[in-house]
Amino acid sequence: MTVNYNLDVSSASIFSFLRLQLRWKGSIWKYLLKELFMFIIAFITVSSVYRSNLIIGEKTRKIWDNFAALFDQNMDFIPLTFMLGFFVTIIVRRWNDIFANLGWVENTAITVANYIRGTDDRTRMIRRNVIRYMVLAQVLVFRDCSIQVRKRFPTMESIVSAGFMLEHEKEALDNVQCGKLQKYFVPIQWSTGLLVDARAEGKIAADLLMNEIGKHIIEFRKMLALLSNYDWVPIPLAYPQVVFLAVRSYFFMALIARQSVLLDGKEPEQPSILYPTVPFVMSILQFIFVVGWMKVAESMINPLGEDDDDFECNYLLDRNLMIGLCIVDDNYNRTPSVEKDAFWC
Amino acid sequence: MTVNYNLDVSSASIFSFLRLQLRWKGSIWKYLLKELFMFIIAFITVSSVYRSNLIIGEKTRKIWDNFAALFDQNMDFIPLTFMLGFFVTIIVRRWNDIFANLGWVENTAITVANYIRGTDDRTRMIRRNVIRYMVLAQVLVFRDCSIQVRKRFPTMESIVSAGFMLEHEKEALDNVQCGKLQKYFVPIQWSTGLLVDARAEGKIAADLLMNEIGKHIIEFRKMLALLSNYDWVPIPLAYPQVVFLAVRSYFFMALIARQSVLLDGKEPEQPSILYPTVPFVMSILQFIFVVGWMKVAESMINPLGEDDDDFECNYLLDRNLMIGLCIVDDNYNRTPSVEKDAFWC
Amino acid sequence: MTVNYNLDVSSASIFSFLRLQLRWKGSIWKYLLKELFMFIIAFITVSSVYRSNLIIGEKTRKIWDNFAALFDQNMDFIPLTFMLGFFVTIIVRRWNDIFANLGWVENTAITVANYIRGTDDRTRMIRRNVIRYMVLAQVLVFRDCSIQVRKRFPTMESIVSAGFMLEHEKEALDNVQCGKLQKYFVPIQWSTGLLVDARAEGKIAADLLMNEIGKHIIEFRKMLALLSNYDWVPIPLAYPQVVFLAVRSYFFMALIARQSVLLDGKEPEQPSILYPTVPFVMSILQFIFVVGWMKVAESMINPLGEDDDDFECNYLLDRNLMIGLCIVDDNYNRTPSVEKDAFWC
Amino acid sequence: MTVNYNLDVSSASIFSFLRLQLRWKGSIWKYLLKELFMFIIAFITVSSVYRSNLIIGEKTRKIWDNFAALFDQNMDFIPLTFMLGFFVTIIVRRWNDIFANLGWVENTAITVANYIRGTDDRTRMIRRNVIRYMVLAQVLVFRDCSIQVRKRFPTMESIVSAGFMLEHEKEALDNVQCGKLQKYFVPIQWSTGLLVDARAEGKIAADLLMNEIGKHIIEFRKMLALLSNYDWVPIPLAYPQVVFLAVRSYFFMALIARQSVLLDGKEPEQPSILYPTVPFVMSILQFIFVVGWMKVAESMINPLGEDDDDFECNYLLDRNLMIGLCIVDDNYNRTPSVEKDAFWC
Amino acid sequence: MTVNYNLDVSSASIFSFLRLQLRWKGSIWKYLLKELFMFIIAFITVSSVYRSNLIIGEKTRKIWDNFAALFDQNMDFIPLTFMLGFFVTIIVRRWNDIFANLGWVENTAITVANYIRGTDDRTRMIRRNVIRYMVLAQVLVFRDCSIQVRKRFPTMESIVSAGFMLEHEKEALDNVQCGKLQKYFVPIQWSTGLLVDARAEGKIAADLLMNEIGKHIIEFRKMLALLSNYDWVPIPLAYPQVVFLAVRSYFFMALIARQSVLLDGKEPEQPSILYPTVPFVMSILQFIFVVGWMKVAESMINPLGEDDDDFECNYLLDRNLMIGLCIVDDNYNRTPSVEKDAFWC
Repeated sequence: MTVNYNLDVSSASIFSFLRLQLRWKGSIWKYLLKELFMFIIAFITVSSVYRSNLIIGEKTRKIWDNFAALFDQNMDFIPLTFMLGFFVTIIVRRWNDIFANLGWVENTAITVANYIRGTDDRTRMIRRNVIRYMVLAQVLVFRDCSIQVRKRFPTMESIVSAGFMLEHEKEALDNVQCGKLQKYFVPIQWSTGLLVDARAEGKIAADLLMNEIGKHIIEFRKMLALLSNYDWVPIPLAYPQVVFLAVRSYFFMALIARQSVLLDGKEPEQPSILYPTVPFVMSILQFIFVVGWMKVAESMINPLGEDDDDFECNYLLDRNLMIGLCIVDDNYNRTPSVEKDAFWC
Repeated sequence: MTVNYNLDVSSASIFSFLRLQLRWKGSIWKYLLKELFMFIIAFITVSSVYRSNLIIGEKTRKIWDNFAALFDQNMDFIPLTFMLGFFVTIIVRRWNDIFANLGWVENTAITVANYIRGTDDRTRMIRRNVIRYMVLAQVLVFRDCSIQVRKRFPTMESIVSAGFMLEHEKEALDNVQCGKLQKYFVPIQWSTGLLVDARAEGKIAADLLMNEIGKHIIEFRKMLALLSNYDWVPIPLAYPQVVFLAVRSYFFMALIARQSVLLDGKEPEQPSILYPTVPFVMSILQFIFVVGWMKVAESMINPLGEDDDDFECNYLLDRNLMIGLCIVDDNYNRTPSVEKDAFWC
Repeated sequence: MTVNYNLDVSSASIFSFLRLQLRWKGSIWKYLLKELFMFIIAFITVSSVYRSNLIIGEKTRKIWDNFAALFDQNMDFIPLTFMLGFFVTIIVRRWNDIFANLGWVENTAITVANYIRGTDDRTRMIRRNVIRYMVLAQVLVFRDCSIQVRKRFPTMESIVSAGFMLEHEKEALDNVQCGKLQKYFVPIQWSTGLLVDARAEGKIAADLLMNEIGKHIIEFRKMLALLSNYDWVPIPLAYPQVVFLAVRSYFFMALIARQSVLLDGKEPEQPSILYPTVPFVMSILQFIFVVGWMKVAESMINPLGEDDDDFECNYLLDRNLMIGLCIVDDNYNRTPSVEKDAFWC
Repeated sequence: MTVNYNLDVSSASIFSFLRLQLRWKGSIWKYLLKELFMFIIAFITVSSVYRSNLIIGEKTRKIWDNFAALFDQNMDFIPLTFMLGFFVTIIVRRWNDIFANLGWVENTAITVANYIRGTDDRTRMIRRNVIRYMVLAQVLVFRDCSIQVRKRFPTMESIVSAGFMLEHEKEALDNVQCGKLQKYFVPIQWSTGLLVDARAEGKIAADLLMNEIGKHIIEFRKMLALLSNYDWVPIPLAYPQVVFLAVRSYFFMALIARQSVLLDGKEPEQPSILYPTVPFVMSILQFIFVVGWMKVAESMINPLGEDDDDFECNYLLDRNLMIGLCIVDDNYNRTPSVEKDAFWC
Repeated sequence: MTVNYNLDVSSASIFSFLRLQLRWKGSIWKYLLKELFMFIIAFITVSSVYRSNLIIGEKTRKIWDNFAALFDQNMDFIPLTFMLGFFVTIIVRRWNDIFANLGWVENTAITVANYIRGTDDRTRMIRRNVIRYMVLAQVLVFRDCSIQVRKRFPTMESIVSAGFMLEHEKEALDNVQCGKLQKYFVPIQWSTGLLVDARAEGKIAADLLMNEIGKHIIEFRKMLALLSNYDWVPIPLAYPQVVFLAVRSYFFMALIARQSVLLDGKEPEQPSILYPTVPFVMSILQFIFVVGWMKVAESMINPLGEDDDDFECNYLLDRNLMIGLCIVDDNYNRTPSVEKDAFWC
């Protein structure tokens, strides 16, 4: 489910910052909680080992210090923020593209309602089916891209019982022979086929108008195809692999390298039990920011998945069908009577 | 209200720099003022504690120094500028998209005026209503995206009394049954429905011309849909959360870590009361630039909000209705008489 | 006036580098000259103070050294290059968009010449006026966006006397009532209105052809609208403010912080009067590169302004009118006789 | 073959991270394996030389240490991550463009099925050939861009025997005289030529409909042309050269510079045989991340090549033909009977 | 001439790396050779001065060391890689745009061949001339943008003798009066004018079809206009100036600053004549990468120039004419006979 926080940021003030941080759903806190907890436990455990005189002696601790200093010297070999920055930018662009191509039926539905004229049952059925077939195509595509939709429609029967398809249409769909290829195109072909029938029956006044509806349906199909292609060809696997691994390795190293409290390689002269809190707090903060940034990428890499922020595909399907039918049938030809408006003169 | 400063930067000189800095409305100063003030107070307070011999002793101060040095060593764990840079770029792109899709009626209005012919009252009413319904759809969408517009139109009645809708249209709108879904599409359907009527009544000469007007209206609807979708699915919450938190944590740390004045871990040999001003001034400057940069992002993240720089949605609605009616009615068929121009030969 | 240097860089050699540097108009040198001079004067003045034993004593100089070292330690708090890099990228994108939408009339003119047939005076006048009204709309928009054009056309009369508008058209324009709103749309409506007249008089053979010309004019109007919108809503003021301020503060700091010549906090053992030249030269170079980079942004932030590199709006208006009239009238129906070409076989 | 891992990342958890890392095909591990192995061998070899007292003496080792320290001081002269970041961004954009323009036939096929009416053999053949010629053009283009396709179709005969072309068509193709230029356009011309024939024979009802199919075919051709042009003009050679060389040189340097284990130029006081593992482990990790990142670029620079992640061009060709024929012939006019849907009321 | 290396990178292996590096044409080596050579000579010369006891004494060398150390301290004032990264990104985007708009005639030619029917001489001539005039417009534009084309066509006569224009067309072109403005539009107007004639003579069956061809020609003109505009308004001069100057200054500084071999300001204890090779080698490498990166930008900044990687404009012109004539004339109406394909059933 997408998470909306626009009201929280309607103006740029300190309160909008706080409101933003206190949200839970889809928040960085929810994504991070488990891993942050694990990191803290691990850090404290290693710290205990390092500081306890029982487990390791003074000499070992010195060696550890040197060891840590060596790590620290080389820690920036891992180009963390840079890789993340570029990677997130690419992910966000892809996420935007997918979002812009989810597919809405309003444009087609409005054109159908205007250009397929008639109030008899058959004309009404044609109008309704043109839209329903479009949404059916969307169901078929979304089933293969989105786990949410797959869970809702595990079988073809479940699509029938949800009303997106009739029994005889399911049979027709099953009868289409095209090897192992996806049948996304079939409902679209039905949908446009109905236009040709409607034109032949005179329900559409001109080829131009039929063609205009057809263009809208093709436009819709292009969006579905783009979704399906993005699902077929993700960003090359190696890219997220290398980025995600870099982040995790970095913090694994940090567990060892950030235990000693040294200033310029020597212990500070004035002892204080507060010192060890500094690397602890700073590592936690770094973990929150860097892993949090990575989580943003992880949650956007598959926007049709099941994260809090992922697009609500099931909702979109229901909405498309309901709005579509409403436009082409219930709302058909219900333009209010033409009257003079308030500014008439 | 948007803030225009183009005249100030019409040429790249030192004066254009000064003029730019001295603006208040929508300026970095206005956004920052409160927080900068709080930061300065906090910095001075912590400074007083650090420097006062009454509150902490010499030894504690040494510990603090070491503490600060440790923080300083780890301060760049927070990848501040990098995160901000990438984040702002994404925000700016989104802001641009929203801006490009606010929706203007001129194109449709000009086409309506040219293609729906007639000067009788009914034809005039049709032309006016086509436009008014478009703006009505915009009102409905903006009410849900923009707080400014919501405040102006808290109820449907308020839209009627502002003249964007007539009483019987409000009833028709209320009667549309589509569950809990938004009714943005209804006025658009009315608007295009009027075209079909006008064509049937012969006020539009050809299907092609009717279709052309329809395309402009659909184009307008697409823009509204895009706005509405951007409002429905913002940038995943975790992204601004992690960026904004990083910035604030950084400066919270800085309050503690930037009190001591040490060169290579030692106090400078020549004492001077001027030294502490350096970390103070530099922290203030850094606060201005980094938090200022972040404020740019904050103010752009919801461009339909209430910041100084946010788009003037209410103005746009009024303007669209006024210009639209002017084009399709007042200015209908008023092309000046065709005469020879100054370069005729 | 735009500055063209393509010939200088037609191949990537050391000479193309030199030729590029030696240009003056629109060059970094021209933009920088004044400020660079001021910076050098200021640097030398501060240097004299620092080095002169008359003004400050040895002890004060030591304090200054420490002071400078402290500054130097914190100088990278100002994320200069990063902010500039991202900012310039955004500015360049905007500059590109504006450039791509300046508006040229050729497409419309060619279509007008082909689809509005006839050589009688009235037909010729219609063709000429369609184009002239387009350019007139451009004049109106540019007057509000570009200072150059505003200066050329301070009043409506000046537009008439330049031949872009006739006297009776000016009256018609004055008579349009639309409150305080811009009347950019009026000439466009006239232009498309003429098409409807020409179609009614049979000068255009089909609705399709009339519509095609109309689409080109609407396309042109969209470009003007985009320009006008970019002018209405600039990049939020706070962004250039924060960037430009960061740059100037940085170099102000540098004046104080870059006077002492110390290696690892101590004066070099072998004295030489050459040492002070290093921070001087390097600061000058940094000034040239960083402020130069900023100047690029400053000069592009308002591309319709008066910088050397800004678009030549007045030229564009004249050119559009001249080319447009040439196409639709002088060059009307002058296709050369159809003959066999050199490759005929 | 493209590698799909969307299911692995359907939600952002630690498990999705592990599942992602454990994949082999198209993974960073597969790309890196050989070079990583070589790097490890080389590193260990150089290490043995450095540490063995037999080969080099204590004094030589000291020199080596100084040598390494000097290298280390200058290692960041190579702007590794920065170059990679920008380069990868450019490569990814290009990869996206190519992917978006691979060319699918569904839109055309659906339009052909709807607008070319008739069930006689000739009409069926026309419909089939329109599609087949489109795919044939794709075969010709892909042969020159993709090694996979070239291997499958080494000769024109192999295209005939695969059924994409008939014998007499091959002859016709051979007879086209256009010097050494590519004949990609020929099948497209045939395809659109068939439309003209079908229109003349009355199989297409109107010019508008013929033109609509033609537009889809031209759209398809544009995509092929874009692919072919991207193949003709790659990113200027010098760019990948300089980036790839920088990465390899860096790690070659690292072999020498990362042998000594020094803290601030001195050996750590507490000896431990563990120390040398630090530069070893960190260099390996850096190698994985940086070279891995570069491999992402290498594998995307020619997306029609033979890497695991490259697009499956042969599959696309077969699929396009099969789906296309299915739509225009098998599935012709098979719209299910129009019945009342589940939500009828 | 563009340089193609796709085959070398068809898979991401170490061999593809080597093959890539060994290319010469358009390679980084070719671009760099001269300057790299000069830099090496200069470096060695300065080194000799620095190291020779004859020229400078021990004391001067010490001063030089300090001098160099001071430079080194301030060397990162020049934000080299950052400026280059952003600059190259902008250049690449522009290069892409230009490349995408070079202009190909196939789409128009195919439409012309299909929609202008007839095999008589006049019809053939019309078809041929429509295309030839398009290419002629391209010749005129390219002459002003590309030095290659200018060299080939220094005069109008040379265009006639190359067959792109006939003598009487040249006269007609000369007779067009439009002041000093470019006459790019004239051949386009002729080309579309021929369509109107063809329609009037009944060679084109419908206005719709004539209009469709016209749209393709206008599309082509838009591309030419974009090229011409990019040539008219380059990226503001100051941007390349500041970037290129930064790079060269940096390496000029480096000549002086990178002579001494010091570790933490002192000479290494164990003397070795190998030490000076480190700054030498590293400076060379840095020169290769940084200047190489800059050369990428230099070679792309004017993609219609004469670099190895620049677009082959002359080839494109010949190809366009040849392919265009082939499509509209030689290949006119040569669709193979319609037969059953291999998958018929």
